[in-house]
Amino acid sequence: MDLHSMDTYIKSLIKEAGHRIRNSFLVDITIETKSDANDLVTNIDKEIEQFFISRIRRDFPGHRILGEEGFGDTFEDLDGVVWMLDPIDGTMNFVHQKRNFAISLGIYENGIGKLGYIYDVVNDDLYHGIQGGGAYYNDERLRPLFDTSIEESIVGINATWITPNRYIDHEATIRLVQHVRGTRSYGSAALELAYVASGRMDAYISMRLSPWDIAGGKVIAEEVGAVTSNFKGEPANLMKQDTFIVANPSIHHRILSEYIRLK
Amino acid sequence: MDLHSMDTYIKSLIKEAGHRIRNSFLVDITIETKSDANDLVTNIDKEIEQFFISRIRRDFPGHRILGEEGFGDTFEDLDGVVWMLDPIDGTMNFVHQKRNFAISLGIYENGIGKLGYIYDVVNDDLYHGIQGGGAYYNDERLRPLFDTSIEESIVGINATWITPNRYIDHEATIRLVQHVRGTRSYGSAALELAYVASGRMDAYISMRLSPWDIAGGKVIAEEVGAVTSNFKGEPANLMKQDTFIVANPSIHHRILSEYIRLK
Repeated sequence: MDLHSMDTYIKSLIKEAGHRIRNSFLVDITIETKSDANDLVTNIDKEIEQFFISRIRRDFPGHRILGEEGFGDTFEDLDGVVWMLDPIDGTMNFVHQKRNFAISLGIYENGIGKLGYIYDVVNDDLYHGIQGGGAYYNDERLRPLFDTSIEESIVGINATWITPNRYIDHEATIRLVQHVRGTRSYGSAALELAYVASGRMDAYISMRLSPWDIAGGKVIAEEVGAVTSNFKGEPANLMKQDTFIVANPSIHHRILSEYIRLK
Repeated sequence: MDLHSMDTYIKSLIKEAGHRIRNSFLVDITIETKSDANDLVTNIDKEIEQFFISRIRRDFPGHRILGEEGFGDTFEDLDGVVWMLDPIDGTMNFVHQKRNFAISLGIYENGIGKLGYIYDVVNDDLYHGIQGGGAYYNDERLRPLFDTSIEESIVGINATWITPNRYIDHEATIRLVQHVRGTRSYGSAALELAYVASGRMDAYISMRLSPWDIAGGKVIAEEVGAVTSNFKGEPANLMKQDTFIVANPSIHHRILSEYIRLK
């Protein structure tokens, strides 16, 4: 792959998709429910995924597509070039707020992250990363993350994970909330990854994320030195839903070892 | 007071303050700690409060000023016209993120809210309300809130209040988190009030807010039908720090009666 020309192509594609999403605000949005009321799907989500797929099939016929809405390919491995796409990450925000959502896209070659994009559509803010080439917030290069401490950190964690749940001992996460400087929850995994990459938060953790939620952000975050893994400390598995943490490298291990107790 | 001419004056003043804040990003920020590390104060906070005070003293010499940074007047009552100002609401976000903070300003006459302003400085988004004259997001009039239910609601609540704390029984707020569609925490009371007023969240609750945190947002939120109170259901007391809820009118009572247990 020629990463530079791919990058130019993808930026243009993402901006066009963003334009389509902003235009959709002018018409009503039809909402279906998928598995439960928390998992809202809109027709815009589907349209945008199909827009990406049609362009990728036309311009990169050898590539495969893993998309949240399921119009892409089915996967048994990550061989070759795979586009991992969430056309609207933060669907609940999209529906309720018409903001605080993002297009999330990662391009992987044989399972290795090559290019990552998180596009905050409403603010027209694009975060992107190129493996070995750095991470960027619009045209500004993001700095490597400075060391920090738990006590000085802002951590992205949804209140759900502070309540009794099937994944982790919530008494341990209660201690995390009490020890950090502050917690936030913005409602979009992709934007929260972008916030960690740009030093606006120091960690973000979630109990169940899918490959398309993290694929783009992982490339961006790792370019500034952030560490990503599941809660066992293993590299994120891009074939299935799993626990996920992205953190400043100086606190990643301590969060997992002191504050996360898997059930 | 001539609310219309006051409104024009204040909008211009707020935009000028916002310009000064954005310019401050070009220079380093000196941070002191106030009572604890969570309560960051910057020199910009102070400069902006003093900028407001100098203009108000010059142009409205009979008015009094209640400001977070304490350069204003001391109060034993709310007689006459009082400006309640938080020059930078969401100081931790300001310092860590350089976004997700706001100028918060309410103008009260004999304790009655007349004008309210929340200015999202970085996005140049101004929310404002005029008693009896409606609430606005920039130039767009905000609609009265539609009825909703707990199960369909997005609620702003910081994870801290889901952990054991001195104010409320956290087991009850755990149930709230489990019953609503989703929770968020954006890290600025003023912006979260603005989100409720614009229907992007359905409620926002906090255990300890000061008059300057809520004064502007209260006017805006009430103009679209949102209900504000402390956790006893009493009108917010603008003379002291207190618990606070702003909510869609269809869920305000149910949140307080079923999910908030004061200690």
